[in-house]
Amino acid sequence: MKAGQEEHRKKLSGVFAPITTPFDSQGKIFLGKLASNIQRLNQSRLRGYLVLGTNGEFRSLSVEEQMEVLRVVVDTASPDKTVMAGTGAESTKVSIDLCHQAAEMGAHYGSLITPFFFAKKMTDRALIGHFSQVAEASPSPVLLYNNPGVTGITMSTGVVKEVSSHPKIFGMKDSSPGNLSAYILSAQQGFYLLAGSANFFFTGLLMGAVGGVLSLANCFPDPCCDLYDLGVTGKLEEGKALQYQLMSLNQLVSGKFGVAGVKAAMDCTGFYGGPPRAPLLPLTADEQKKLHDDLVASGFLK
Amino acid sequence: MKAGQEEHRKKLSGVFAPITTPFDSQGKIFLGKLASNIQRLNQSRLRGYLVLGTNGEFRSLSVEEQMEVLRVVVDTASPDKTVMAGTGAESTKVSIDLCHQAAEMGAHYGSLITPFFFAKKMTDRALIGHFSQVAEASPSPVLLYNNPGVTGITMSTGVVKEVSSHPKIFGMKDSSPGNLSAYILSAQQGFYLLAGSANFFFTGLLMGAVGGVLSLANCFPDPCCDLYDLGVTGKLEEGKALQYQLMSLNQLVSGKFGVAGVKAAMDCTGFYGGPPRAPLLPLTADEQKKLHDDLVASGFLK
Amino acid sequence: MKAGQEEHRKKLSGVFAPITTPFDSQGKIFLGKLASNIQRLNQSRLRGYLVLGTNGEFRSLSVEEQMEVLRVVVDTASPDKTVMAGTGAESTKVSIDLCHQAAEMGAHYGSLITPFFFAKKMTDRALIGHFSQVAEASPSPVLLYNNPGVTGITMSTGVVKEVSSHPKIFGMKDSSPGNLSAYILSAQQGFYLLAGSANFFFTGLLMGAVGGVLSLANCFPDPCCDLYDLGVTGKLEEGKALQYQLMSLNQLVSGKFGVAGVKAAMDCTGFYGGPPRAPLLPLTADEQKKLHDDLVASGFLK
Amino acid sequence: MKAGQEEHRKKLSGVFAPITTPFDSQGKIFLGKLASNIQRLNQSRLRGYLVLGTNGEFRSLSVEEQMEVLRVVVDTASPDKTVMAGTGAESTKVSIDLCHQAAEMGAHYGSLITPFFFAKKMTDRALIGHFSQVAEASPSPVLLYNNPGVTGITMSTGVVKEVSSHPKIFGMKDSSPGNLSAYILSAQQGFYLLAGSANFFFTGLLMGAVGGVLSLANCFPDPCCDLYDLGVTGKLEEGKALQYQLMSLNQLVSGKFGVAGVKAAMDCTGFYGGPPRAPLLPLTADEQKKLHDDLVASGFLK
Repeated sequence: MKAGQEEHRKKLSGVFAPITTPFDSQGKIFLGKLASNIQRLNQSRLRGYLVLGTNGEFRSLSVEEQMEVLRVVVDTASPDKTVMAGTGAESTKVSIDLCHQAAEMGAHYGSLITPFFFAKKMTDRALIGHFSQVAEASPSPVLLYNNPGVTGITMSTGVVKEVSSHPKIFGMKDSSPGNLSAYILSAQQGFYLLAGSANFFFTGLLMGAVGGVLSLANCFPDPCCDLYDLGVTGKLEEGKALQYQLMSLNQLVSGKFGVAGVKAAMDCTGFYGGPPRAPLLPLTADEQKKLHDDLVASGFLK
Repeated sequence: MKAGQEEHRKKLSGVFAPITTPFDSQGKIFLGKLASNIQRLNQSRLRGYLVLGTNGEFRSLSVEEQMEVLRVVVDTASPDKTVMAGTGAESTKVSIDLCHQAAEMGAHYGSLITPFFFAKKMTDRALIGHFSQVAEASPSPVLLYNNPGVTGITMSTGVVKEVSSHPKIFGMKDSSPGNLSAYILSAQQGFYLLAGSANFFFTGLLMGAVGGVLSLANCFPDPCCDLYDLGVTGKLEEGKALQYQLMSLNQLVSGKFGVAGVKAAMDCTGFYGGPPRAPLLPLTADEQKKLHDDLVASGFLK
Repeated sequence: MKAGQEEHRKKLSGVFAPITTPFDSQGKIFLGKLASNIQRLNQSRLRGYLVLGTNGEFRSLSVEEQMEVLRVVVDTASPDKTVMAGTGAESTKVSIDLCHQAAEMGAHYGSLITPFFFAKKMTDRALIGHFSQVAEASPSPVLLYNNPGVTGITMSTGVVKEVSSHPKIFGMKDSSPGNLSAYILSAQQGFYLLAGSANFFFTGLLMGAVGGVLSLANCFPDPCCDLYDLGVTGKLEEGKALQYQLMSLNQLVSGKFGVAGVKAAMDCTGFYGGPPRAPLLPLTADEQKKLHDDLVASGFLK
Repeated sequence: MKAGQEEHRKKLSGVFAPITTPFDSQGKIFLGKLASNIQRLNQSRLRGYLVLGTNGEFRSLSVEEQMEVLRVVVDTASPDKTVMAGTGAESTKVSIDLCHQAAEMGAHYGSLITPFFFAKKMTDRALIGHFSQVAEASPSPVLLYNNPGVTGITMSTGVVKEVSSHPKIFGMKDSSPGNLSAYILSAQQGFYLLAGSANFFFTGLLMGAVGGVLSLANCFPDPCCDLYDLGVTGKLEEGKALQYQLMSLNQLVSGKFGVAGVKAAMDCTGFYGGPPRAPLLPLTADEQKKLHDDLVASGFLK
């Protein structure tokens, strides 16, 4: 039994929004809008926030900007919300530095994407060393982040098996297609899995995931939380129906347009989305119009 | 005719070493060793240095560390050497910031790797916008850097055709397998290609590349410069023979071990290589011994 | 409503074994062993057989051999078993020829793998044309077969949406990681999904798949059928537990060794597995011994 | 020294056309057109023909059709032309059968594509076993065929090193981007490399390849033979110029449209191209018109 594992289970159980970073039309960070987005999300049943993840365009920000963003979220989040911060860099040393900075800001967890610049050299041994050393040195507990669509690296179940017993590593966000169950099976006690996409959230919960980090939660937090409730209570028929509705919705937004689509959907739902930072391109006016119509047709946008 | 294109051709023609970043056994940057490496390379016929590239483990450094490294190289390089600095980040804005910092330090060119975190969204339009905007805002001229082995993105010939006429973009380092000629064919006047690997340096020169950025130049600058001379003078038989020798050598060093191998070979040849920064792993003692023996057997290490 | 769709639903609902092709030590097909394997599987609750699929090494056989194999299975299968035969070739014309031959032999369905030799040209339009024309010309109904791990092509949901309304196309075996739900969502009435791996069989059933084609069913048909029963009756806890047990088992057998492992596990469980056909390599003696021990330790091999 | 190696060098030195298979509008093979294409190519300086390769859509034909095609080419080819036939199947056994059939028809060499259906299992050991066993059993000498763009497998230099000493394996057609020199370096005596694309034909010749199998040779045999002459005589400036012209031409034809483009260009140049076999799609009328105009503009189509 890992120290504190039950408390961590509670802090990680539920739906998390991977917070987007608002920019103005010049590409400057718009901290006021970030605060107002968080204030509104505070009213929801979301379990918490992941700041500085893929949807937060964290690699498009300077480290100074990253910390400004994190400060606003930590300062604005209501006390019951768990705050995770992306602190994974390409080297062990820089990741440790970011864990220190994020912990000082008040983030509850550091989230460590697999280093991938030297992807061909990221053997199990290299990754195990990296995650263990960062966890060891980090003031706060850490989570892993597996996203082969971005990194080109699919975490092996052997890595999960090995590092899941580490006393300061408490889980993983998995955005890979089709591996979530295999990771749950490989994980040792006190290591919790979070579905990294609405596409497999309901089945993930049924198979033992404790929650999800869903880009849709930025614009549609309520149905995401509804699906969580159906999953943990094992309501098969209703859950299946809502799962398919959210998959369709997710396809319209994130599947088709990525971060730019999430932001455009936020603009449709009363949040501030705004443009992504270049070289990411925003939706064209036609695409935005079409997205709005599609969201209305889906029934989720009233 | 692009303003200054002949002068740029001269500054880019020849062999460049993609400088490695020396670390001590704790992973701290070892600036004294960097300076002594450069002092020794200053004695060679190398045309110049690429600082903060893949072999420099630039993404494994903090921005502060990057600038320390660049400052030492700029301060130590003899005045006849051209200094390029990796200034490509994941966003247009951060890339521009880095171009400013590097130019202030005294780098002659910024080298822009294709942004790749959002690889699936890096359409030609996105990349053309990125490169053009960075070049526009940069105080110094810039070069592109195409390395699909790292980024997963193969620059299209359409992008090269479009941006090669930009008045501040003067060339590209191409590390892709088999595309160098296609880029030369697509490039407009005043845009110069550099081979990004010893494996196709000689044929690249024969087809019109003006030089190369060769990891081998860190440890074996002389034969690299010999091959350059054979290429530009069209000495087919000698060039072919040396090309095959350097391919074998390159396979032993970089092909097998990547950056860690380049550093280990530097340790064999009187430079300071040292360990790579974690999570990259150094060669084992056995691998180092074998590499030394292989280098001796190759005839290049006396 | 598609003509006959309810009857097809019945014929496709349950567990299918993707029959392996037995060879002797010289690589000659061992038809007697094939018959005895089928006779034994006839005693199980399996819904039927897929002959000439990936596990049948169909592309390693001549067309004459394929038809010999199919004849034995059709002649030996008990009348209640559904027989599907791999009839997908690289051209529309040859696929149609194979559908004719298989139907004459008595196969109930032709199974059409996506053509993939010219993978880069297999646009949605090309695939829709192919599947529709083969179905049109085939004497028997057909199923699609999506296996990107082999073909490099992930069927788009647009293709499924389009061809699922075809009056002679009744479903798809999906072996891709993580897309099964998306295909179910895209399919029109009378188009049934079969999970192509034990790894996502239980969740697939919960989300609406009607059955599975599971390599494990060649050697362990009973627990596969048990899992099917738990899935269709929505027994969450027992189903989850068995799902995880079968995932572990599957990893030992097919995950680690592919077809050669399935055959070796058959040799452990009283079926005839035998060697795969070269260039596929059989397990070494050590690997076979280890597999046997692992199967005993798993509890599935008594 | 390998028996007969000098004679094989002669038979393999020069330009080969990878013969396309003509179909009528119903997808039926048009043998008369095949014969007339060959008759016309017999007048050229081509060294010979590769029948049943990628451009021959060999995997889209039944084995009976393959042999009909081969018979026509063998019967029509002038005696000085070397005829290679694609005889590589997914299993060692079927490949051997095809080698026998092709040799009986009169083909001089069998060409063995790497088996790739079970690509993940095609280890060096599996491939070495395959090629050696097929060569051993084949009545005629064999060549390897490396085309990762189709197979997903890049032959390792270790495989080439090992099998290149086999007394019945005399060379390889390499269509991979950027590896040709590495294969030449790895090959033992009496193993000859053929460039599999016009894109690297000239540099390949300079580095030691003895010839090329060029899809352009189907429609523009003369400039391909001119480039060969410039390569073997080391005419750098003229060779470079023609190489770039043929790269542009190749991009218009094969690069853009694949086999369908080669056939369309044949229709423009007085050969019979015709449509590819479904599911490959022919060029649209607009694309054909544009291709014709582009070929005229290139100067190669008078």
